[in-house]
Amino acid sequence: MSLIKQKTDQAIDVLNELDIDVWLTYVRKTSEIHDPSLYFLLEDSWLTWQSALIISKDGQKIAICGRYDVQNVESSGIYDQVVGYDESIKQSLVEILNELKPRTIAINYSMDNVAADGLTHGMWLRLNKILEETQYINKLISSEKILAALRGRKTDTEIERIKKAIAISEEGHKKVGKNAKLRMSEREIEKILLDFTKESGVEVSYPPLIHVGPTTIIGHGRGSPDIKIRRGDLINVDYGVFYNGYASDIQRLNYILREDEDIPPKEVLRAFETVINAISAGAEKLKPGIQGFEVDYVARKRVTDAGYPEFMHALGHQMGRNVHDGGCLLGPKWEKYGESPLYLVEKNQVFTLELHVYVENHGYCSVEENVIVTKTGCKFLSERQLELSLIKL
Amino acid sequence: MSLIKQKTDQAIDVLNELDIDVWLTYVRKTSEIHDPSLYFLLEDSWLTWQSALIISKDGQKIAICGRYDVQNVESSGIYDQVVGYDESIKQSLVEILNELKPRTIAINYSMDNVAADGLTHGMWLRLNKILEETQYINKLISSEKILAALRGRKTDTEIERIKKAIAISEEGHKKVGKNAKLRMSEREIEKILLDFTKESGVEVSYPPLIHVGPTTIIGHGRGSPDIKIRRGDLINVDYGVFYNGYASDIQRLNYILREDEDIPPKEVLRAFETVINAISAGAEKLKPGIQGFEVDYVARKRVTDAGYPEFMHALGHQMGRNVHDGGCLLGPKWEKYGESPLYLVEKNQVFTLELHVYVENHGYCSVEENVIVTKTGCKFLSERQLELSLIKL
Repeated sequence: MSLIKQKTDQAIDVLNELDIDVWLTYVRKTSEIHDPSLYFLLEDSWLTWQSALIISKDGQKIAICGRYDVQNVESSGIYDQVVGYDESIKQSLVEILNELKPRTIAINYSMDNVAADGLTHGMWLRLNKILEETQYINKLISSEKILAALRGRKTDTEIERIKKAIAISEEGHKKVGKNAKLRMSEREIEKILLDFTKESGVEVSYPPLIHVGPTTIIGHGRGSPDIKIRRGDLINVDYGVFYNGYASDIQRLNYILREDEDIPPKEVLRAFETVINAISAGAEKLKPGIQGFEVDYVARKRVTDAGYPEFMHALGHQMGRNVHDGGCLLGPKWEKYGESPLYLVEKNQVFTLELHVYVENHGYCSVEENVIVTKTGCKFLSERQLELSLIKL
Repeated sequence: MSLIKQKTDQAIDVLNELDIDVWLTYVRKTSEIHDPSLYFLLEDSWLTWQSALIISKDGQKIAICGRYDVQNVESSGIYDQVVGYDESIKQSLVEILNELKPRTIAINYSMDNVAADGLTHGMWLRLNKILEETQYINKLISSEKILAALRGRKTDTEIERIKKAIAISEEGHKKVGKNAKLRMSEREIEKILLDFTKESGVEVSYPPLIHVGPTTIIGHGRGSPDIKIRRGDLINVDYGVFYNGYASDIQRLNYILREDEDIPPKEVLRAFETVINAISAGAEKLKPGIQGFEVDYVARKRVTDAGYPEFMHALGHQMGRNVHDGGCLLGPKWEKYGESPLYLVEKNQVFTLELHVYVENHGYCSVEENVIVTKTGCKFLSERQLELSLIKL
């Protein structure tokens, strides 16, 4: 069964569970602005004019689209009914709603979850204009809970794809460890990973982030051509790929031993252990039914209890069709995260666990793992880094 | 001067012309949902947390973004001031607005123009929440007029890129003409173009559309592997590429002569001439200051006056950073097109001119050209097809 068929069938179950009558995804010109929900509703197809993809609690799948897109949508084999139009979507949309008689219509917007927020404000205004003289105008709600469930609860097919993406990431990390040389720049390490990605026939899920030594610039920028490996440096690499549409997101940490060293200095080891222990604390707390911020809190506390400053990001985000996925976030209750840290953890959600401390004179000490939530806790999908990778050059 | 620098400078002129104090583009997680305005505001960079890109009438360019993106935005060299934040964008955004004291703030949404409608509804709600206790809540307007000007008025750099994209398209069309064979399928013709695109080191600006003979399915679907070239067929090919981020969009029409034919049948010639004449009529009408629908009307009338049914799409859309670009549309006043056919044509806008009639037993008779608006009229950027391309196989 195709993944889209699996996910649209899953959506019907979710609608029943949430008691929502209709899920309506309203889009236009998807080559220009691509609603992330479309990954679960229509594969490899562009919709040109305003289109509505409708799934109902009683199991109907209906698409309304411009006449020139009808063939594409029909050939997807997902929709029981595909309605084409020429001048305006209004009449067909109102007719279909009149048939479905929904008490609630979940629409593709969300304040807190970008992956459920594909409806543009202009399209929201258009939808309101179309429905203004109907009873449906007062039945619109956000579809964010549907999307959170649909994105979060991975099917077996999705889990297999993520595992494969993780395996490729891990191989890439090993390649960096083997090929690291003195005076190699961050930009050159980036190139090792980009070449490896190409050879592996996949794409990166985000530009690889390379942090070498104490002068590295921490952030989402490209690795510097001028910052180069020296003895005593921490080398942090953040590298993920998409395998068949599904992402991995892994960080590994290496230390370049000094000539007179067999083990790293105390302060490096202590930082590494703090990061590993904090990840363990988060993983121990992670299980179905807990709120995201509770998991973040125990890891964050390990770091501050050890006397390090707090890391200024969430402990873990979901991962799946995109690197940042799903509704529930393992993050603090900061304004920018909205409601997402309050969501409940569910079985089969896949999370990152990641955090860092900074070690003066050595660099950015950060590790990131990928885990899946099980019935009673969580399981690591990545092979955990429990030892600092030591490199003698 | 980089194109982004050119366009952000142009934006300052447009703000003065429209008497708008501030243009504010509000985005988040641009790897997931990419506001099309970003093509003119920030190249090759992802913004992760909520970010505001601000250009003011008095010439200031200010960016507010998450701390991990500051380095990227600074290195673009576009913004005079880059403000980073950790927990919430609110304080910095309100402070910057307090400094700028705008009477009007143009925001990135539009009912009618998808290319100016990158703000999601969830982000609109967030912005309103951030500004709810300030005076700015009542100063928000749509930035669609800024975007229409910015996208429409092509700089010399943009025009050069479009010309190059058109030249590559035209070469691809010739390749199809030379390589067409009896019993070649639509899917095989598509492959000729995709291979050519790859060899040319560019990407298609939309999946090539191939229409062979009377049984073809008209629309945005992929060419069929089962519909194959026969004598007496019209072969319509719709093929465009991106060159350095700028699009072409060209259709050419071929006719496969029958064994006993030196010229196509009367009904084919008459259809072709009708299409060509309608394009000419549109081109003659096209000039600065006219409304889009007036241009569409004269072409549409040629077709219906000749006794053919009306084509169910607009005569011409703008072209540029995307295949469908700008504000003004050369289209009829249909609901789905909103206000866009009412916009005025301006100098240096680039339009397609395209329409079709269907010829029973022969197929889809359609041609598409690309033109640029001059001071007094328009000029063809594509080498016009004035003769039906006849192929003897």
